[in-house]
Amino acid sequence: MHRIQFVSRSAMPENATKPLGKRLSYCSHCGGTVQAQIPFDDNRPRYVCSHCSMVHYENPKPVVGCVAEWEGQILLCKRAIQPRYGYWTLPAGFMELGESIAAAAIRETREEAQAEVRIGRMLASIDVIRAGQVHIFFCATLVAPAFSAGTESLDVRLFAPNEIPWGELAFTSNRIALEQYLHQRETGRSYVWSGNAL
Amino acid sequence: MHRIQFVSRSAMPENATKPLGKRLSYCSHCGGTVQAQIPFDDNRPRYVCSHCSMVHYENPKPVVGCVAEWEGQILLCKRAIQPRYGYWTLPAGFMELGESIAAAAIRETREEAQAEVRIGRMLASIDVIRAGQVHIFFCATLVAPAFSAGTESLDVRLFAPNEIPWGELAFTSNRIALEQYLHQRETGRSYVWSGNAL
Repeated sequence: MHRIQFVSRSAMPENATKPLGKRLSYCSHCGGTVQAQIPFDDNRPRYVCSHCSMVHYENPKPVVGCVAEWEGQILLCKRAIQPRYGYWTLPAGFMELGESIAAAAIRETREEAQAEVRIGRMLASIDVIRAGQVHIFFCATLVAPAFSAGTESLDVRLFAPNEIPWGELAFTSNRIALEQYLHQRETGRSYVWSGNAL
Repeated sequence: MHRIQFVSRSAMPENATKPLGKRLSYCSHCGGTVQAQIPFDDNRPRYVCSHCSMVHYENPKPVVGCVAEWEGQILLCKRAIQPRYGYWTLPAGFMELGESIAAAAIRETREEAQAEVRIGRMLASIDVIRAGQVHIFFCATLVAPAFSAGTESLDVRLFAPNEIPWGELAFTSNRIALEQYLHQRETGRSYVWSGNAL
């Protein structure tokens, strides 16, 4: 908890409302109303409680997944949920409290594809700035060619590189991770691609 | 927003309260009281509003920093804030909405060490599970040997490898990132270390 300095909305920098993310109205600690203000020891607007002065920080969320291979083919899931219902995605999802990033990739693959994977090296770290997310993908191998649609998937399939449905991928980060996986495999290089999903 | 199934506390799995993280009491959307429940389409407890049924998800937060080098020496900052006041740390901090992970590392180095860095490859991704954080460190080089203590630092210094104050480092993730940086530099190997800070 911080003491705050009240700053009127007009006194804030032009991009002041941009980093605030999800609209908050009430303090989750005391139930008081919150307002966008720059705390005195800070340089950007935060939601601050007008009653107890608690500052409610918001940060990007990690999304974790994997490119899971079986004999040269890659596992994709057809989404049964919004956003991007009906499009193909790598198994991936929001990391939960209490788990490691590798454990998150294993859990998401279990949930979406009912498949067991062995997690390998990190493949890509992709900033999805407009969504407030960082997408992290690992290389992985299926433990067995056993998979089926979990509750969040309509279908799960293995795709050879020349079968990948590039036009029906759910997210830009899927495309980047798949391109990197195939490019690095072809060229025999191994590195973590890091950059923005534009 | 999800419809919820009310589940009594005793019906929850034994580790049910563990992933809930920070204690929430009120709904940030409508101001109603929240309760720990497993939503009907979920498999773990979340804080759910008893008035508007909004589910308040909590996820680990990305912390980003860098090992910044100048002519073989490494930049460390002596913390002027809690936790770990007075201990040495790599420049690092919570990623903000609206920025990339590389931009977060640059900003944190500016804020804590008043130094400009060029960000290189990713060095380590460290799960700090008990704190609900993922620490990501990059390799970096100082643009110039110009640095000084920002408001969050008591002191900023360059350390030769044999001068690093191992016993006075603020966090386990600092130690891992420094060990990896020196080990990889010594052995001429380049990879992203990924694992838990125990």
